[in-house]
Amino acid sequence: MAEIAEFAAGLLSAARISDTGTAQSIKTRHNKYFMGTECDNLRATLCRANSHYLPLRTLAVFTALRLLIATIMPSRELVIAFDADDTLWHNETIFEQVHERYREMLSRYHDTETVNRTLFATEMRNLDLYGYGVKGFTLSAIETAIQLTEGKISTAEIHRLLELGRDMLAHPVELLDGVAETLAALAAEHRLLVITKGDLRDQERKIAKSGLADFFSHVEIVSEKNEASYASILRRHSIRAERFLMVGNSLKSDILPVLALGGTGVHIPYALTWAHEHAVAPPDAAGRFIEVASIREMPAVLAGLR
Amino acid sequence: MAEIAEFAAGLLSAARISDTGTAQSIKTRHNKYFMGTECDNLRATLCRANSHYLPLRTLAVFTALRLLIATIMPSRELVIAFDADDTLWHNETIFEQVHERYREMLSRYHDTETVNRTLFATEMRNLDLYGYGVKGFTLSAIETAIQLTEGKISTAEIHRLLELGRDMLAHPVELLDGVAETLAALAAEHRLLVITKGDLRDQERKIAKSGLADFFSHVEIVSEKNEASYASILRRHSIRAERFLMVGNSLKSDILPVLALGGTGVHIPYALTWAHEHAVAPPDAAGRFIEVASIREMPAVLAGLR
Repeated sequence: MAEIAEFAAGLLSAARISDTGTAQSIKTRHNKYFMGTECDNLRATLCRANSHYLPLRTLAVFTALRLLIATIMPSRELVIAFDADDTLWHNETIFEQVHERYREMLSRYHDTETVNRTLFATEMRNLDLYGYGVKGFTLSAIETAIQLTEGKISTAEIHRLLELGRDMLAHPVELLDGVAETLAALAAEHRLLVITKGDLRDQERKIAKSGLADFFSHVEIVSEKNEASYASILRRHSIRAERFLMVGNSLKSDILPVLALGGTGVHIPYALTWAHEHAVAPPDAAGRFIEVASIREMPAVLAGLR
Repeated sequence: MAEIAEFAAGLLSAARISDTGTAQSIKTRHNKYFMGTECDNLRATLCRANSHYLPLRTLAVFTALRLLIATIMPSRELVIAFDADDTLWHNETIFEQVHERYREMLSRYHDTETVNRTLFATEMRNLDLYGYGVKGFTLSAIETAIQLTEGKISTAEIHRLLELGRDMLAHPVELLDGVAETLAALAAEHRLLVITKGDLRDQERKIAKSGLADFFSHVEIVSEKNEASYASILRRHSIRAERFLMVGNSLKSDILPVLALGGTGVHIPYALTWAHEHAVAPPDAAGRFIEVASIREMPAVLAGLR
């Protein structure tokens, strides 16, 4: 950016002194800055200007204004954002394995249904204070175990819950089928984002471990996925809602708020859905809600949108 | 931004058709967009251009390039960033109260020094997985209590630790002396940021509860405060390091990485410092390291930098 600004300053002084002798060097530098970028319109304008031998001053007007518009205007390009957990990599299956061990641990005291229901109630009660993620889950699991056993659970078992929590945090990242190839193909043509909620450090670690980081221009980790947080991301990145596609497994977090803002939602259901993420009703947004079985179908989805 | 882009597009088409009749309306719109902004250079250039009756095309070159430079170039304005915990509001005192109750709980088993040392060791061992914040602290406190009592701690006491953790998260935000008045004065003249580490939701909640949110143009919550994370923030907000001032209580997190990047650090020591934040040596950066006793001295610090 600083380099482009310096170049623009050079253009400014060239225009000021009307030194047409510098025209050629400026044209050469144009090419350097815009070859290989996606400013096709700009390049076309410049080529037209060059081929008609327009005076330097006119060339400068075109260049500067096109550059300006390209810099500050919400882009027309399609931006595709992906949820992370259960969209790019397995997550709910890991939680489910821990739940299974948890129910075994408490099976002397209560049946499966009671354990599930009570743990979920504790998580919901603590959600506002703890937010999403493994650490909050671990704290809620310890609290529920003490409650359901009326304090009779052993400290060795509580220690085991702490270990299970740490195992989840240290768990290898297992990509869903087709993710790496599909992202590689999409990233060649589009700007890709990750938008995920949960513990800051845990999500950063998973992105790093996934090997996918280079496909994304930005990773947004938010404490809640709702209309306000999506609107803030669109504003910050100068993305128009109608050119924004959100891909995810949760109707509630990934699809409904994006549809409400005028964007498009691509729903890829995961085998398991955490009770908290169940949406009440299927969305009603003609043409802007698409459901597919696998991320491998994304190129076909994009072809259908054109 | 979209409005400015639309205006720039108007300029472009006016320049293209060489319609000098639209010059006056364009000049009027210039005034609308730049009055009240800080683009003094731009306004001065435009006034000069107007007073010499330069042709529209030259005016367009000046305007567009100045706009471009103002838009994409790292600004020359001074940006002041504040740490949050123990810089804007009390935090370590709340942790210290919980530590005190924790030591009492374990005093039947171990002396103060052993409890402190073991808890700190657990926190450091878990730091990479848990990150900073209350939830990780609570998990480490439970783990240490089980370890130090060889499992003899009661589940009622573990339940009490969970409650203490939740009390910390729900604790009212108590501003340090002078914070509200000083930020109000600084925000009238400078762009202010918050840069803090910890749990995403907890820090968002504290910003909201503090009543200070409107003073800041951005709040950055990061998982670690080091050279890489500061460099990423400066890049993202187009801030030049030499025009960046970081204010905080931790030499290690708030001052040393900023000095290393060429910025200025203002150290305001807090009465208590968590062991993890102790810096080894005082920084050696002539003129770029300033230590004051209170945030109330910030206006004097800024006057001294000019």
